[in-house]
Amino acid sequence: MTEAPPKTSYRLLVSCPDRAGIVAAVSSLLAEWGANIISSDQHTSDPFGGRFLMRMEFVPAGGEPMDIDPVREDFRRRVAEPFGMEWRLSPGLPHRRMAILVSREDHCLLDLLWRRRRGDLPGEVVLVAGNHTDCEGDAARFGVPFHHVPVPVGGKQRAEQQLLEILTGAGVELVVLARYMQILSADFLEGVGAPVINIHHSFLPAFSGADPYRRALERGVKIIGATAHYATEELDAGPIIEQDIERVDHRHTVAALTEVGRDIERRVLARAVRRHLEDRVLVYENRTVVF
Amino acid sequence: MTEAPPKTSYRLLVSCPDRAGIVAAVSSLLAEWGANIISSDQHTSDPFGGRFLMRMEFVPAGGEPMDIDPVREDFRRRVAEPFGMEWRLSPGLPHRRMAILVSREDHCLLDLLWRRRRGDLPGEVVLVAGNHTDCEGDAARFGVPFHHVPVPVGGKQRAEQQLLEILTGAGVELVVLARYMQILSADFLEGVGAPVINIHHSFLPAFSGADPYRRALERGVKIIGATAHYATEELDAGPIIEQDIERVDHRHTVAALTEVGRDIERRVLARAVRRHLEDRVLVYENRTVVF
Amino acid sequence: MTEAPPKTSYRLLVSCPDRAGIVAAVSSLLAEWGANIISSDQHTSDPFGGRFLMRMEFVPAGGEPMDIDPVREDFRRRVAEPFGMEWRLSPGLPHRRMAILVSREDHCLLDLLWRRRRGDLPGEVVLVAGNHTDCEGDAARFGVPFHHVPVPVGGKQRAEQQLLEILTGAGVELVVLARYMQILSADFLEGVGAPVINIHHSFLPAFSGADPYRRALERGVKIIGATAHYATEELDAGPIIEQDIERVDHRHTVAALTEVGRDIERRVLARAVRRHLEDRVLVYENRTVVF
Amino acid sequence: MTEAPPKTSYRLLVSCPDRAGIVAAVSSLLAEWGANIISSDQHTSDPFGGRFLMRMEFVPAGGEPMDIDPVREDFRRRVAEPFGMEWRLSPGLPHRRMAILVSREDHCLLDLLWRRRRGDLPGEVVLVAGNHTDCEGDAARFGVPFHHVPVPVGGKQRAEQQLLEILTGAGVELVVLARYMQILSADFLEGVGAPVINIHHSFLPAFSGADPYRRALERGVKIIGATAHYATEELDAGPIIEQDIERVDHRHTVAALTEVGRDIERRVLARAVRRHLEDRVLVYENRTVVF
Repeated sequence: MTEAPPKTSYRLLVSCPDRAGIVAAVSSLLAEWGANIISSDQHTSDPFGGRFLMRMEFVPAGGEPMDIDPVREDFRRRVAEPFGMEWRLSPGLPHRRMAILVSREDHCLLDLLWRRRRGDLPGEVVLVAGNHTDCEGDAARFGVPFHHVPVPVGGKQRAEQQLLEILTGAGVELVVLARYMQILSADFLEGVGAPVINIHHSFLPAFSGADPYRRALERGVKIIGATAHYATEELDAGPIIEQDIERVDHRHTVAALTEVGRDIERRVLARAVRRHLEDRVLVYENRTVVF
Repeated sequence: MTEAPPKTSYRLLVSCPDRAGIVAAVSSLLAEWGANIISSDQHTSDPFGGRFLMRMEFVPAGGEPMDIDPVREDFRRRVAEPFGMEWRLSPGLPHRRMAILVSREDHCLLDLLWRRRRGDLPGEVVLVAGNHTDCEGDAARFGVPFHHVPVPVGGKQRAEQQLLEILTGAGVELVVLARYMQILSADFLEGVGAPVINIHHSFLPAFSGADPYRRALERGVKIIGATAHYATEELDAGPIIEQDIERVDHRHTVAALTEVGRDIERRVLARAVRRHLEDRVLVYENRTVVF
Repeated sequence: MTEAPPKTSYRLLVSCPDRAGIVAAVSSLLAEWGANIISSDQHTSDPFGGRFLMRMEFVPAGGEPMDIDPVREDFRRRVAEPFGMEWRLSPGLPHRRMAILVSREDHCLLDLLWRRRRGDLPGEVVLVAGNHTDCEGDAARFGVPFHHVPVPVGGKQRAEQQLLEILTGAGVELVVLARYMQILSADFLEGVGAPVINIHHSFLPAFSGADPYRRALERGVKIIGATAHYATEELDAGPIIEQDIERVDHRHTVAALTEVGRDIERRVLARAVRRHLEDRVLVYENRTVVF
Repeated sequence: MTEAPPKTSYRLLVSCPDRAGIVAAVSSLLAEWGANIISSDQHTSDPFGGRFLMRMEFVPAGGEPMDIDPVREDFRRRVAEPFGMEWRLSPGLPHRRMAILVSREDHCLLDLLWRRRRGDLPGEVVLVAGNHTDCEGDAARFGVPFHHVPVPVGGKQRAEQQLLEILTGAGVELVVLARYMQILSADFLEGVGAPVINIHHSFLPAFSGADPYRRALERGVKIIGATAHYATEELDAGPIIEQDIERVDHRHTVAALTEVGRDIERRVLARAVRRHLEDRVLVYENRTVVF
């Protein structure tokens, strides 16, 4: 939602046990290398003995691209290892390669393709794959290759194998399930080697599982919602990245709830994908910190 | 949230099998008696074979109070019986008598008492009862009698009996559980002879049961909410009247979620109580229609 | 946002001086013709001497299409004239013919075209016209004819004339300004003979006029919004149909505000167009009643 | 909205021209003094030549209170002066002394007093002053002294002088205008020597000035709001701290809008006061950064 970083920015993500001196060590090293920190967010789960999470974005003080490899090596040796950090230091560009998986619903796909075309989404959509062909035309209209990978009864394992080949073959760095109505196996999630973001059409943990709009109607809730989360082995239980809701009332049928829901789903998914691509999402104890 | 009715208004609530001619029959009879319908809401669960729910508010065309009893009798005979209606025809005034049950939390109680003092809540708060005495001072400050009904271990049945005597003795027409942290038995709910509105501190059906803010933190949700519902025998499963939410993030501890939650709880409960007192809530298949 | 009406439904819109007996007269006549009222909304600006506004939706009790012309004639004679009504009685179908006017921004256009394709918008998009050609491809992708009507300096009158010919030639019943960045003259608004809905990119009356996102940044507001309204001679002053907002903060640049704003604009405009097409919007004293 | 800081925390606020090395210089010095940074927020208006704003919160690494004066002196000499900083380094406690000014409306006052009693507001309410006596009883109920300072026609200057004596005599560090319906002069604002937070009952800049709810009704807006801002010489034009809104519709009269508005006003003002007391609000070019 916030400003796009300048073209030559770099992002540093850090997760380590909290103790005094982390910010000083990180920022001093960056200052030595002539970096100007333009954005910094941090979170400490507990100031006495908790975990420290940080995202920094910096630009070369002169504005010219840096040779980042020596910085990385220096950081590893003098900061990351002494503080026991999990970390990543990456340029704001180039954009990451993403694949979108769909079934029959078009709204989340169209929205992502449109945002990508506008330049609002810092990633490349390298392919769309669907177990149905309903969305093939939309992918084509935005110039993105479409792969049809049907999932016949009894053929799920084979279909997942085929998907894996397509995704890994394309060097995909992010998989987005844009209302892909198939449950992915733990083997698939492990094999794909990239984060998988799913959109669930309820405000989890309410109405996890199938048919949430019908169940929302039957329970008589006054708000419905959607949840974007990282897909994990346990269905609908992965770390939540973003949620949003709309008010509804007794006049909403299941069809009307579904229509309202489409608007929530597409904006929640788009925000989550964007935050992820901007390296703003850190996972910690099955929860996320979204900077 | 909408305009207060004129002083001499009347409200008609109707629930019956849907068929052609209901509105005509009702409105023609009211017209014959010189009533001017100033507000009318209706809902049909299914235009072919469903249930018809309606709320009408009318004033005497001349502005003077009507003698309502003959209208009621005429309505019963010529409209309600032929159409098989459940119905109620009542004056907008006098205000209904309500009791508020509390434990240790003060926010919902204070908010209701303040709204009552402002004249924003069309009901009389005739008493406050608590299983703790924490809220005794606030009740006193607003001039409302407080009853201390402790619930010792093993003494729940006796305490409910005592509450029942207090509530029925005071002719209470609505009971509001303003964070009353005791589960009421089916016997109590039946014996009290008045609707009971509860506020639950989550967006039901998520986190039903105890300790929702802690569970919200552990699940990592990005929104928290509250739900006002009619209390029924099955805990947290009664018809939902109103819900609302706030966005939260990783910086919110359980204490911070609880604090945000207090603001949601008090406004959700106040809206539900107000809607109920304005006869805007009709129950149907464990759901509500809120006109 | 609510349920689509059954295929053979009819809508009656009424505006007249308030007095007793209106609902009775209307509903009795409809009952005589075998109509089952499935939805009814009304508003009285003042129960003693104000204006009465009503929307009714009804289906033939038997489910078969009615011959509506005799109903209309009967209604005119026995109800509309005696009560001094402005009124319209129209079938829920066929869909109304709408035209969309654009400049360079694609988001509102794409959103309307997508909703139309889904069947969520009860109208036909018969043409798109733009003073630039940026959106020509998107119109083509959804199979809608595009007209390029440039507005050169000094050529506004001629361009408006050209637009009028296109719109009236196509029998357009609704014109939607989907971020059409030209001010339309009073002559045009009169000549087009159809309602014109505009989307303004601020929460009017704040930041009326040009460049609202820059001015929002400079004023340091914490929320931005969009407003859909009927276009009138006085710029940005027409009756408001729908508004919505999003929270923003100091990190939002003008570009970021504009991006957030696009999401608000498209959903506000889509809701307004839908409500209009469903005959839910009545205008009264430069304000709207949206049922 | 977020977690209360640990008892022995310190807050550092910084505003200076942006350049490389600021974070490093600040955090290195704090590390030398054994401080553990538990929260850090920063904003750069422009990475090349803009202004740098930062808020840090830190605890002594050992958990024991620090002797902060030498840290302050060291910081001034080695960091603040070289970087040309405006800055403040203050302990999270003790609480700041605040005064609340009221007229006849009770809702904002009651809400602040209640939050203070709960411990949700990190400040002391040392006095309430009103130009009417309507709120005297509520102040008394919460044990806060009330000063009646009437403002008769022609007596404004004298009343302001009286107020100034009360406020400065009490060592007030924050003045909250809780629907104080008097315009304060530039002389007063300068003389009081403390920030003044006002709540305005519209989503500024819409409906600035008097009677916003009536004007909202006449304009037919679909949302109303409230705005908390620092009071400045120019009426309703000071830096905005917080805003929020609610949806309304044609059924809301001025009285109903006012009632809805009260709920918005009290929560917006409470958030703004809390953020201010937590040193989260920095002013920059008549705008705020709220960390």
